[in-house]
Amino acid sequence: MRTSLDCYPCFVRQALDAARQVSDDPAVHARVLRGVCEFCAELDLSHSPPAIGQQVHRIVRELSGSSDPYAHVKQQFNRLGMSLRDRLRPRLDEADDPFDAALRLAIAGNSIDFGARSDLTEEDTTALTNQAFTRPLHGHTAALKRAVADAGRILFLADNTGEIALDMLLLEKLPLDRTTVAVRGRPIINDATLEDAREVGLTELVPVIDNGSDAPGTLLEDCSPEFVEAFHTADLVISKGQGNYESLSGHGRRNIYYLLIPKCKLVVGRLSCPLGSFVVRSGDEDESLTPQGAIHEDSRTH
Amino acid sequence: MRTSLDCYPCFVRQALDAARQVSDDPAVHARVLRGVCEFCAELDLSHSPPAIGQQVHRIVRELSGSSDPYAHVKQQFNRLGMSLRDRLRPRLDEADDPFDAALRLAIAGNSIDFGARSDLTEEDTTALTNQAFTRPLHGHTAALKRAVADAGRILFLADNTGEIALDMLLLEKLPLDRTTVAVRGRPIINDATLEDAREVGLTELVPVIDNGSDAPGTLLEDCSPEFVEAFHTADLVISKGQGNYESLSGHGRRNIYYLLIPKCKLVVGRLSCPLGSFVVRSGDEDESLTPQGAIHEDSRTH
Repeated sequence: MRTSLDCYPCFVRQALDAARQVSDDPAVHARVLRGVCEFCAELDLSHSPPAIGQQVHRIVRELSGSSDPYAHVKQQFNRLGMSLRDRLRPRLDEADDPFDAALRLAIAGNSIDFGARSDLTEEDTTALTNQAFTRPLHGHTAALKRAVADAGRILFLADNTGEIALDMLLLEKLPLDRTTVAVRGRPIINDATLEDAREVGLTELVPVIDNGSDAPGTLLEDCSPEFVEAFHTADLVISKGQGNYESLSGHGRRNIYYLLIPKCKLVVGRLSCPLGSFVVRSGDEDESLTPQGAIHEDSRTH
Repeated sequence: MRTSLDCYPCFVRQALDAARQVSDDPAVHARVLRGVCEFCAELDLSHSPPAIGQQVHRIVRELSGSSDPYAHVKQQFNRLGMSLRDRLRPRLDEADDPFDAALRLAIAGNSIDFGARSDLTEEDTTALTNQAFTRPLHGHTAALKRAVADAGRILFLADNTGEIALDMLLLEKLPLDRTTVAVRGRPIINDATLEDAREVGLTELVPVIDNGSDAPGTLLEDCSPEFVEAFHTADLVISKGQGNYESLSGHGRRNIYYLLIPKCKLVVGRLSCPLGSFVVRSGDEDESLTPQGAIHEDSRTH
């Protein structure tokens, strides 16, 4: 998915949010913002939003002097995710369809995305996970369930901190001896890395690899050879979040399922689902909807 | 009021919106956006948002090749404003307090602001004017009414096209022999100029001057000497909209009333009124609330 001109204001806003995570000094905020505006003046729209986001956040880290601007947020939401996971696990056993219930909680966890909004509170996250069982789900749980049953090797692409703790509820419903989870290679926004996977206990449940990249998505050309091999040899890929969707959809990978909450009008337009909704989308379905595998930079949904 | 770093994403978004008003060509949109990002990388935050907006929209006009990107929107909403004005005027005579009712409709008209949102529809505007009589009003109608009764010369600073037609309902309740209306000197976003004042019949009701400026607000240093004299010699200034508020508040002018719908979190924070609410604010009150007459660039309302 190509970057749209509509992404520019969002990159600028993200940069300011990230700078404010690092420092209270307006001079630091201004320096970061100016650096990102300079970069935006030259940017190449043929890349996907996560590829541009990767560059933007490298500038943020360089000009703010912080290697991990969201470090404290990541710890905070990992703790919250673990607490929600432990509190909600018993409800799965009572559910009519425990797989569907676990899927919903994993998608609810995708709301913990500080790239989309930096004013997210613990209360927001708790409220959304509590609503998860009753919200409409756009997509086909049954198809994903069949794909899981049929698959040999499953690769699960994680997205954010906190979210990975709720993902564990879904992972517990998968064949764990055939499943690997992949996280980001280095800190980027509040995305989960190996350190986070260890923190929430994910590494004790299932093998976890990192993808070698600091993009807020999955840019195969930027990932480690080990990850790329795992991606291509998996029978089924389960991909969490908008960043992974933006970077992987339309690239022709078969048997990939995207689980996400769409957070901007461009992705909403592409998925034909409401902003903030719970989405399960098969990659095959996505390819057939957008045969060129790219939206144009002038696409407008308003 | 100084420009905040939070204004950056908004300037970038405004530039894209304006470029799309002019052309369907993504190359034009990209050219405009890159030019504005380059400008933002260098901008001086000591100026008010309308002073920066003036520069941003000059870049938009230059790089898009259009001297008036919102020309068609302006005509469309002038027509709508006249139709609403004529339809709603009889309801004023039935109102318990016709001045208060007229004030509410004039403020409702301030929603016609394509700087704040470019997807505004005629239906949105119609719906809001219909709600005008029953929405909460933040401020003191009675104080404004007294100020009007006490004033010799009144200067009314208009804001947007369409809105000026609804302003006429309020102007009809003022002493017209002592009142002058001022509009922008040249096209800027969808703000009203002399041409618009003629189009909606405002010039037949009351003397209308232009301020000589193409800023989306009132930058006294950029206005014509005639306007500046009218501003300083008026006993009472009634100022419409956020742009006039951002450029004039905190500059020590006494006996000025701001009528507006706040449209961003910075102005909401300063006014302590909800986003999208109907506000009547005395300048004296504003000065006492913010003694330094400026918010800092690191102020955050989220």
